Amino acid sequence: MNSTNPSNKGAVTRELILARALEMADAKGLDALTIGTLADAAGMSKSGVFAHFGSREDLQLAVLDAAARVFTDEVFVPAMRERRGLPRLRAVLQAWIKRTLRYGENRGCPIGAAALEFDDRPGAVRDRVLQHIRHLLKEITRAVNIAVEQGHLRADTDAEQIAFEVHGLMLAFQFEVKLVAKERAVAHVEVGVERLLEALMVSPTD
Amino acid sequence: MNSTNPSNKGAVTRELILARALEMADAKGLDALTIGTLADAAGMSKSGVFAHFGSREDLQLAVLDAAARVFTDEVFVPAMRERRGLPRLRAVLQAWIKRTLRYGENRGCPIGAAALEFDDRPGAVRDRVLQHIRHLLKEITRAVNIAVEQGHLRADTDAEQIAFEVHGLMLAFQFEVKLVAKERAVAHVEVGVERLLEALMVSPTD
Repeated sequence: MNSTNPSNKGAVTRELILARALEMADAKGLDALTIGTLADAAGMSKSGVFAHFGSREDLQLAVLDAAARVFTDEVFVPAMRERRGLPRLRAVLQAWIKRTLRYGENRGCPIGAAALEFDDRPGAVRDRVLQHIRHLLKEITRAVNIAVEQGHLRADTDAEQIAFEVHGLMLAFQFEVKLVAKERAVAHVEVGVERLLEALMVSPTD
Repeated sequence: MNSTNPSNKGAVTRELILARALEMADAKGLDALTIGTLADAAGMSKSGVFAHFGSREDLQLAVLDAAARVFTDEVFVPAMRERRGLPRLRAVLQAWIKRTLRYGENRGCPIGAAALEFDDRPGAVRDRVLQHIRHLLKEITRAVNIAVEQGHLRADTDAEQIAFEVHGLMLAFQFEVKLVAKERAVAHVEVGVERLLEALMVSPTD
């Protein structure tokens, strides 16, 4: 790689600005993120930021996409080391719990926060948020279905229903971590996840 | 009652202002609610509103308390007609589902919305929000415990855990109603609630 290659340098600068933008969105929400506040935080001119993100909306969409990539890297990628089926599904859920705990100190997951910031504002940002959340629920559904195919979970498992319930457990967990009582939150979500999975597990007598 | 009694008239006016404030908070969130915007909406002077609510914070706290009373009236009070124990618990959860469906068109439950608006702003409003949510979770815990006492649910039921999981189902439901796919949301939450309760039910052979 040639670091003097202008397009390469441009891509690196864009990634650096995006990383700073993601930090800002994590801390204060997507609404607080403007080309101006980001330029200040990144020590750049507004026109410098504009050169990489044509509009505030483009910037917000890029931040959401970056947040989704971070989620995949933290939750789904490490689970690939586990055996297909229930072990991998469990690893995904454990990683999601750990991630929520880390993010709990801030505003929580930037996509989840944006879902609530933009829920009553139709437009490209809201659409992108929903796209990422639907994708996440589909990935959970898929992981449950693979556990069924592998014979780890019962054949009559409604994977979409399980994804809905997992999402609920994670929302209640995030809520409890941030707002109520962090101490019991991990036990609550882990018991909930195990209860959900155990009810679906193929028993030796089946 | 004497409608010319000034303190009585004052209380009625306060209730009318509060009802309008609650509508505004439902539609746009607690943050959008100021003495000025409320005075405009109520067709009053700012000083007229100030006479009833000494500050914006007092107004916000009064709106949260009013929202909690509405929740109790809509969810817990009608369930009192049902038999103590599991029938009453089921009635509470069904009423909560119906209420969420009604509110789904707007911002959702004003207290839930405020929990997210104020999660990173310590102060009296955030404290009051948490007080109301903790109270709700305690009431659910209590209803589960009564169902245990009545012999409807297993003696080893962890009522606090069940309240956590019920909260999760309701959060996922609210999320799905508002943001993803309303059609399947009711089936998802009802199946989730029934699965949760059925796993705890005392079977005839116990």
